Amino acid sequence: MNALSSSTLASLIADLGDIPTVTDAKIVRRRSRDFFWYSPILNEQLDGKSADLIVAPRDEADVVRVAAACARHRVPLTVRAGGTGNYGQAVPLEGGVLLDVMALATIEWTKPGIMRVGVGAKMNAIDTELQSSGWELRMHPSTKRTATIGGFVAGGSGGIGSVNYGGLREPGNILAARVVTVEEEPRIIELRGDAAQKINRTYGTTGIITALEMPLAPAWKWIDVVVVFDDFMEATAFGYEAALADGIVKKVLAPITSPLPSYFGALKPYCPDDKSILIAMIAEPSLESFKSLLGGRGTITLETPTDDSPGQVPLYEYTWNHTTLQVLKSDRSVTYLQCLYPHDRLLEKVAEMRDLFPDEVLQHLEFIRFNGRVTCSGLPVVRYRDADRLNEIIRLHEERGVYIANPHVFTVEDGSRYKRIEADQLGFKHEVDPYGLLNPGKMRSFTSTRP
Amino acid sequence: MNALSSSTLASLIADLGDIPTVTDAKIVRRRSRDFFWYSPILNEQLDGKSADLIVAPRDEADVVRVAAACARHRVPLTVRAGGTGNYGQAVPLEGGVLLDVMALATIEWTKPGIMRVGVGAKMNAIDTELQSSGWELRMHPSTKRTATIGGFVAGGSGGIGSVNYGGLREPGNILAARVVTVEEEPRIIELRGDAAQKINRTYGTTGIITALEMPLAPAWKWIDVVVVFDDFMEATAFGYEAALADGIVKKVLAPITSPLPSYFGALKPYCPDDKSILIAMIAEPSLESFKSLLGGRGTITLETPTDDSPGQVPLYEYTWNHTTLQVLKSDRSVTYLQCLYPHDRLLEKVAEMRDLFPDEVLQHLEFIRFNGRVTCSGLPVVRYRDADRLNEIIRLHEERGVYIANPHVFTVEDGSRYKRIEADQLGFKHEVDPYGLLNPGKMRSFTSTRP
Repeated sequence: MNALSSSTLASLIADLGDIPTVTDAKIVRRRSRDFFWYSPILNEQLDGKSADLIVAPRDEADVVRVAAACARHRVPLTVRAGGTGNYGQAVPLEGGVLLDVMALATIEWTKPGIMRVGVGAKMNAIDTELQSSGWELRMHPSTKRTATIGGFVAGGSGGIGSVNYGGLREPGNILAARVVTVEEEPRIIELRGDAAQKINRTYGTTGIITALEMPLAPAWKWIDVVVVFDDFMEATAFGYEAALADGIVKKVLAPITSPLPSYFGALKPYCPDDKSILIAMIAEPSLESFKSLLGGRGTITLETPTDDSPGQVPLYEYTWNHTTLQVLKSDRSVTYLQCLYPHDRLLEKVAEMRDLFPDEVLQHLEFIRFNGRVTCSGLPVVRYRDADRLNEIIRLHEERGVYIANPHVFTVEDGSRYKRIEADQLGFKHEVDPYGLLNPGKMRSFTSTRP
Repeated sequence: MNALSSSTLASLIADLGDIPTVTDAKIVRRRSRDFFWYSPILNEQLDGKSADLIVAPRDEADVVRVAAACARHRVPLTVRAGGTGNYGQAVPLEGGVLLDVMALATIEWTKPGIMRVGVGAKMNAIDTELQSSGWELRMHPSTKRTATIGGFVAGGSGGIGSVNYGGLREPGNILAARVVTVEEEPRIIELRGDAAQKINRTYGTTGIITALEMPLAPAWKWIDVVVVFDDFMEATAFGYEAALADGIVKKVLAPITSPLPSYFGALKPYCPDDKSILIAMIAEPSLESFKSLLGGRGTITLETPTDDSPGQVPLYEYTWNHTTLQVLKSDRSVTYLQCLYPHDRLLEKVAEMRDLFPDEVLQHLEFIRFNGRVTCSGLPVVRYRDADRLNEIIRLHEERGVYIANPHVFTVEDGSRYKRIEADQLGFKHEVDPYGLLNPGKMRSFTSTRP
């Protein structure tokens, strides 16, 4: 399904000069995928989509050159980094160039509380680098060990750490972004403050990010903790109390219903049969207070320093969308949803959804702050029947006030909770991608006004 | 109004050996006061109350000796440190010993996120000491420059920093307390976790605290900011947004209504006539995000690093109960209240109270977290008419869902929002102070069962 004529491809490559490219179809096809296959629906829709070639800029000057060449030849361009997304963010819908930005991984500078870093830096590498100076990223996805900071900002919403700082969309969580426009003469634009939100969660369709300025959090010594409960609602109620306890420093609080822990491979020794668990990351100096708050309500079966160095599996890799992955390892019939619970009726709504789909939607929750309130994100594991039933489950959630960001669609709009693009993001796209070359089809509200 | 016979006094002093004492009536009377005079009602009730002597233990062993002697002779004992409280916490209601614990000021140890410190350490000295290791106290009152950690824990509820960590009563904000009992053979009790709450806000009536284990916060470079608004409700609405913005690191957010800033001495150049202001402490790396959130809604007139070194006046000394003090400096006819607004109807209730007492109750608010929710504490300046009207104002607040911790009463119970003592605090008092010698009358629910 290559989209480029061989002559266009040849002229394009000639224009790229010594910038590394890959045209081996097998490699290009493999790299044109991300983790969209968690969704059986996307798996059908996106299977086989591929770029024509991979281009791997070595620095921002290379990015400018690629952008200019793509604009000149009207060749689609899809940005790709770690490829850990689940929405086909890195899948070129109309072929063209797959821009692998992993080489733009330099930490430009750090100062207390802020860093400036290349888009392709892996988040785990960033945190390792920052460790000695006492800082760490404020939040990261469960894919931290392979994902990049740029991919997270372009496609993520929040994650481990959002129980403290809220999501990426909250003021102050992305300080600045530097983007290259896709034009014959590309411009480099620095977006600061609110303006930086123009590139958040638009899947690379609103300019090619080359660098990011990110706020940092003071680094704590984190302790991975598993607490076992007889009942999921007890785990949730305690998790909620711990989330609300501002004197207890934590990074993740994730209640997980039985029988999900039975799929948790290496963690199974700490997860008795038929029990629900709470996974927590607690700052070491807060551990005593955490236990004091727990009292006799649950049993701690594991307590060990968080370790996400190579070869280790930190507990956060059982939370957020890694829960789904842990189950998919042995049961390919499941998929997932993305829920946001209302902060003012939280426990009531969790119980209501539980009763509605007792064996079909298996809940796990991640406490977060959202607009300054403690609530839950939830990525339940769904025993998949068919698309109709999945859409019915979504509808039944939304009718009852549990918002769904649908992960079974591939456009920016449909996956949004608002089913639309923020006005300034759409306007900005006209400015930075006038020909609509950045993964055409991904932002479906956009129509180019330029031929 | 000395309570001790000269023979009891002489035997007591003999029993104290070489522990320093002061019996000069003038000095003893002066030290038997705190800042209760903010309240015209307390000022009448407590004026003239005095200890018989000051005893100044040099270490915990001295404290034990004093406690034993007081128990043996059935002499009342009132603990006193910085004397910055407003509820007569340091005022001996029935004379006896005034125990000055300021010499117990040693930092026993610090480790990442935790310190253990003597009860009499000044909070400013603690923060200065911690600075180099990158830590600071999580919260402090506006009297930080003279108040001690023990006085804060024994009499305070929260303060600057509570917008992040909630109050002292929240889990994890007091890790442990060491107390000496008042018995013929005093015991030393270590209270950890929840149990440490037994000495929080009981004004020294539940044991003599000698040391505290306190959680620490990562230290930021704080910037003092004044933002000017045409209207108080605009200042409050913006302050609320900033409080809810979890990506913006702050330590205080205090909207202050016109005309209060006109009383602000050295700050007046930054406070245009008839305007309301917001006082903020923002972490330097979050300052750009703070301004981005502000947009054009207010005007920043001051932006300077927080400096609470000797001779400097940090902005937090215009917030919390220092606002009252600033006004009292030139107008002795005012007093104040202590309000807690409901988190779910915050702006509505602030506006409602404003309309109810437009010129009589002058609002300033301090955003805090309380039980995990963002809300406001408020210590409005009240143009005082008489006690009846003051009680009517209190009633009108409470009827409308704004809770009042009454600062015009001197017992623990009456000043509490719950008008009672927590059961475990009362029980604990029987254990540590069986004869009821710790400032008798201060905890009025307590009746000694021992002669």
